[in-house]
Amino acid sequence: MKISDISTPAALIDVDRMNRNITRMQSRMNGLGVRFRPHVKTSKCVDVTQAQIQAGASGITVSTLKEAEQFFAAGVTDILYAVGMTSNKLAQALALIQKGCDLKILTDSVQSASAIVAFAIANHAYFKVMIEIDTDDHRSGIKPNSPQLLEVAQALAVGGTEIYGVMTHAGSSYDLNTPEALLHMAEQERSGCVRAAQRLRDAGFSCAVVSVGSTPTALSARELAGVTEVRAGVYVFFDLVMLNIGVCNIDDMALSVLTTVIGHQQEKGWVIVDAGWMAMSRDRGTQKQTTDFGYGQVCDVAGVPLPGYVMTGANQEHGIISKQGEPDLSIASRFPVGSSLRILPNHACATAAQFPEYQAFTSEQNTQTWPRFYGW
Amino acid sequence: MKISDISTPAALIDVDRMNRNITRMQSRMNGLGVRFRPHVKTSKCVDVTQAQIQAGASGITVSTLKEAEQFFAAGVTDILYAVGMTSNKLAQALALIQKGCDLKILTDSVQSASAIVAFAIANHAYFKVMIEIDTDDHRSGIKPNSPQLLEVAQALAVGGTEIYGVMTHAGSSYDLNTPEALLHMAEQERSGCVRAAQRLRDAGFSCAVVSVGSTPTALSARELAGVTEVRAGVYVFFDLVMLNIGVCNIDDMALSVLTTVIGHQQEKGWVIVDAGWMAMSRDRGTQKQTTDFGYGQVCDVAGVPLPGYVMTGANQEHGIISKQGEPDLSIASRFPVGSSLRILPNHACATAAQFPEYQAFTSEQNTQTWPRFYGW
Repeated sequence: MKISDISTPAALIDVDRMNRNITRMQSRMNGLGVRFRPHVKTSKCVDVTQAQIQAGASGITVSTLKEAEQFFAAGVTDILYAVGMTSNKLAQALALIQKGCDLKILTDSVQSASAIVAFAIANHAYFKVMIEIDTDDHRSGIKPNSPQLLEVAQALAVGGTEIYGVMTHAGSSYDLNTPEALLHMAEQERSGCVRAAQRLRDAGFSCAVVSVGSTPTALSARELAGVTEVRAGVYVFFDLVMLNIGVCNIDDMALSVLTTVIGHQQEKGWVIVDAGWMAMSRDRGTQKQTTDFGYGQVCDVAGVPLPGYVMTGANQEHGIISKQGEPDLSIASRFPVGSSLRILPNHACATAAQFPEYQAFTSEQNTQTWPRFYGW
Repeated sequence: MKISDISTPAALIDVDRMNRNITRMQSRMNGLGVRFRPHVKTSKCVDVTQAQIQAGASGITVSTLKEAEQFFAAGVTDILYAVGMTSNKLAQALALIQKGCDLKILTDSVQSASAIVAFAIANHAYFKVMIEIDTDDHRSGIKPNSPQLLEVAQALAVGGTEIYGVMTHAGSSYDLNTPEALLHMAEQERSGCVRAAQRLRDAGFSCAVVSVGSTPTALSARELAGVTEVRAGVYVFFDLVMLNIGVCNIDDMALSVLTTVIGHQQEKGWVIVDAGWMAMSRDRGTQKQTTDFGYGQVCDVAGVPLPGYVMTGANQEHGIISKQGEPDLSIASRFPVGSSLRILPNHACATAAQFPEYQAFTSEQNTQTWPRFYGW
């Protein structure tokens, strides 16, 4: 199929750009001497994930057990479920393990660790468990020097589990935008996680894996001594948030939304398109960054950005495109009804999640449909 | 199934509340002497829509042709596709009509009207077309007194179409929060749309249908002289945006997200739950309203709101719950790991869209799975 024949709105993947992004990250990780475990929550797509594995990825990271089930069914066995485990999900996790999935689960509290142990013993099961470390005060995890770290390890040691390692995610790297600050955050992420691993080992616990990562820190770290694996997700597509952070260029962005002009409000300089927030998502991740792109950067149908034109408003199935600053009062003739545009998203994970499928293309004349899944 | 057995995160529908909302709106419309055509973009669910039709709705409004296809397959024939039509969707619309769907389509420009006519003539087809009117400067449509209105009617009169009527949506009612302002907006919406219909009739065009509506104006109008039908969507579930506008109470809200506590950052007064923005959506619709509920209002598992506790942060699969104002430093013992909470959403349309299905309940002991669809 040609791009011009695709029903709108549609999520387009530029496969050449995607492959370039995959190669860039994998080469970087190879150079740093660590395994790379991509976070597949960004794409939730077997075709994308296969490209990451073929490039050299060692296993995957998932954000839901549904992802674990779907990718295991597609042949991926080495899976880290990187969200804190609770009792109500243990039966689902065990079912995967019993089918042969090498699933790793996560905890950051004595309560959760004890629930895992109790379930494992009651069900004659065995879980590989990672302990989540908080290296940047951002979200979940135990501080590297907290007494709680050893308490959780002791709770896990009661039985039915193996301490597989420690993992951290320096999500506050998303708030930075200079190479120096990013390098510093990458080092903070590395040293905190390595410190936690060392404390576990010093106390006599095993801790084979030291897993760190976010796209900005993975692309900024200069050395990763003591780290065994890195995780990152959004690098596969990149987006406007990553552009503002400074870890990609605009022509690295592999995901865009194809849309059709459905009308105008000429005196306001508005174009109305058939991609609203249902297509773009409500993510306004660039709002607090250096450049606010509204709901997305407008490009022509070939993907060439049109500077100054952004999606300034979004209803469910209507997007409003206008020129930043002075309104463009000839916008209606510039973008007539029925013409096609492409919109680069603020946050690829959020925009991709709105679509049941991608239209993946290598040229304007050759697109393939790649399904993606959603839900829990 | 019991609510306590539902895997989290999950979208719960309180069926008693939903039915009360449906009855309230339908009774109001019956009292005002107009037909009611619910906008099913909110639920995208056959079970919900059947309840609306059983209560007396006359046809439905949809925001995508996918909705039209799905609801037509479920037996609904009278469908208004309320987003401006463009050439690339006409074949899909015609296919529905040829199968027996009484589909109405929309235009607000000579270009779009001419494209419809050209397609109709080329394909020996016949479309019922509504003209969109802009009564509040909010989004799409032609101003009631604009010369463009008659130009579009003339473009449609070339052949292959019937001018079915005029429709308007006063979406700026979402920016109001007093009964007086809402009543004024409802009257502005009514009078503008009736004026446009009269101009068409005075010029010799047919205009049988005068269709207005948004949930806030539908619940505020005192009289609807000249209007033949009203449309509204979110009233079926209501949400925190509607609460701030003042058209529902908190115990009218029929949609909530069931979530499980997965961890804490006790010194910050944070609870981490397994519903992040993937479950709640990124919609921050209450941010600019009187009360900002973050990503949602926290309730206990029975649905009783816990005043002051809101979802203050959201990552993809992690929500951060905290107390507004002073942090609650005993939050970890109040909401232990593994406990269940329910979150009322800012915007029901956006939150519901994140889920492949609803868990609909009439009591804590009795839930049913209602599928919903997505995509285009």
